Amino acid sequence: MPRRVGRYTVLLPSRPVITGWAAVGGKKEGEGPLAQEMAQIFSDGTLGQKTWEKAESEMHKAAAARALQNAKKSAADIDIQFAGDLLSQSIGTTFAVREFDIPLFGLYGACSTMAQSLAAAAMLVDGGVIKSGLASTGSHFCASERQFRNPLEYGGQRPPTAQWTATAAGAAVVERSGTGPRVQAAIIGRIQDMDITDANNMGAAMAPAAASTIADFLHDTGSTPQEYDLILTGDLGATGSELLLAFLQKQEGIDISGVHADCGNMLYAPDDKDVLAGASGCGCSASVVCSHICNRLAAGELHRVLFVGTGALLSAVSALQGQSIPGIAHGVLLTSS
Amino acid sequence: MPRRVGRYTVLLPSRPVITGWAAVGGKKEGEGPLAQEMAQIFSDGTLGQKTWEKAESEMHKAAAARALQNAKKSAADIDIQFAGDLLSQSIGTTFAVREFDIPLFGLYGACSTMAQSLAAAAMLVDGGVIKSGLASTGSHFCASERQFRNPLEYGGQRPPTAQWTATAAGAAVVERSGTGPRVQAAIIGRIQDMDITDANNMGAAMAPAAASTIADFLHDTGSTPQEYDLILTGDLGATGSELLLAFLQKQEGIDISGVHADCGNMLYAPDDKDVLAGASGCGCSASVVCSHICNRLAAGELHRVLFVGTGALLSAVSALQGQSIPGIAHGVLLTSS
Repeated sequence: MPRRVGRYTVLLPSRPVITGWAAVGGKKEGEGPLAQEMAQIFSDGTLGQKTWEKAESEMHKAAAARALQNAKKSAADIDIQFAGDLLSQSIGTTFAVREFDIPLFGLYGACSTMAQSLAAAAMLVDGGVIKSGLASTGSHFCASERQFRNPLEYGGQRPPTAQWTATAAGAAVVERSGTGPRVQAAIIGRIQDMDITDANNMGAAMAPAAASTIADFLHDTGSTPQEYDLILTGDLGATGSELLLAFLQKQEGIDISGVHADCGNMLYAPDDKDVLAGASGCGCSASVVCSHICNRLAAGELHRVLFVGTGALLSAVSALQGQSIPGIAHGVLLTSS
Repeated sequence: MPRRVGRYTVLLPSRPVITGWAAVGGKKEGEGPLAQEMAQIFSDGTLGQKTWEKAESEMHKAAAARALQNAKKSAADIDIQFAGDLLSQSIGTTFAVREFDIPLFGLYGACSTMAQSLAAAAMLVDGGVIKSGLASTGSHFCASERQFRNPLEYGGQRPPTAQWTATAAGAAVVERSGTGPRVQAAIIGRIQDMDITDANNMGAAMAPAAASTIADFLHDTGSTPQEYDLILTGDLGATGSELLLAFLQKQEGIDISGVHADCGNMLYAPDDKDVLAGASGCGCSASVVCSHICNRLAAGELHRVLFVGTGALLSAVSALQGQSIPGIAHGVLLTSS
């Protein structure tokens, strides 16, 4: 059965099912428009932990536990957990999932992790290699700022292109059969690098990767933007979204303006001045997709969503060594049935 | 077709083929017993780059390019590259593979990356999801010491349990058909944590994970150690290997002493006093498996090798925050035909 269409896209004829999903968030996320759809809001950003990294792990763990619960599964029912995060050596993940005792397939795709983990779980379920997978990730504003930019105590001013790393996590159980949204196709992205070096402008670094993955997917499947209810990018924010629409229009002649939305523009209240160009971080698209988007697909209010997670592949070391910020974007086609 | 046997092991009935493999190493690796089997030795550890991280990327790139060449493939023939490394945010990988323009599935399993990437490629090839995958990883002593322990200039004395991070890389092309060693089964490991906190004793941190994965695999497949020519662990070194044999003997009643070898004990000359307890790093098992082991399987001198890559899931941050060092181990069953 030829699953691959075109050069980059994989069709998943068995249409693996997302049988359980959950998102959790911090205080600021709890003040945003999606708060009601989250399984839990932690008003204390420390989650009772002594470090931000441990708080991130607790949040990631909570999302995974809730997703399992919603899928009516225990950890022992899951064949492989696909998880990763932004922290160096993925420690947010390691210390979140340790107690589940599920085989752990660690992955790294920066903020594209939710799309990448969903793609991995769905591809292996569709291939008959596993029966069930758990896809999960999270991020924490305080852990991320310290690692990538400045310690919070520095109190530096952030430029208008800067984004706010979500203090949030999301998780989804993917199975061969059951009730819930389906994963009909997946696309693993290629690195795109347009020589952006400003760590306060991640949207610009990631937009070319999003454009490439969206154009590849539409080309491979011979479909038009109008065939999707949403083409949903991960965390380009206001700046990156604008660039994405312009790239696709000018370089590919593709107009997605009527169907495009970005999780980075959906998580926080529009009048929240802190967030500047929008939300970012692994937890951004994870918490939006594993709450609002899956809910609307399950309710039949959305039917076809091309979710393209976007990641900026930099470290503090590579940034200080003058390297550019390459971007990557992985996608999954989510459908209501 | 039920591929899963027992709780953790996946059989790969189509037996994906490793059609090309290559390893490269630095000066010290060039003085070791496997030097003749490496595709290239770089006597200048900088590889002409200004930073150790960039040197690591160049080495990773060279191994991947050689593996493609040996498989008679170009980058455009590969559906997905599975790659990762030890550096924060996997920058060794990002800047190594950027120019290949192959869809990149980034993974994180610390020093278990070669086994994990081979498992991922083989599972997706076997599932019919992709036709060809490239598995690759690398590490560099100087980049790794600085990141995890002390800057080289510090010149700290290393205890006898310390291992020497390999300045090396390895890569393998996995396809549906062709000539070469085969991947007959895969197992994704679970995190094991026995509360080791000494960053100079990675062998002890990883041995419980290796024991768990080996015991699970033997149990799932109903096989005995004697059915393998080699049970090859990644980079436990002298200390970790001793612990592994003791764990398996005492806790599981399994004696692998007659068939066990560890890549960490194979890479360097036995009289090299620098390396203390042995080699480690993603490049250790990658360079041993993608040279000596694949060569011997291809020549029919080895027939069944259970390769279990071992990883220590720590970061400098988690270590300083008093967290333990959890271990993980992923395995692939490599056969001569």
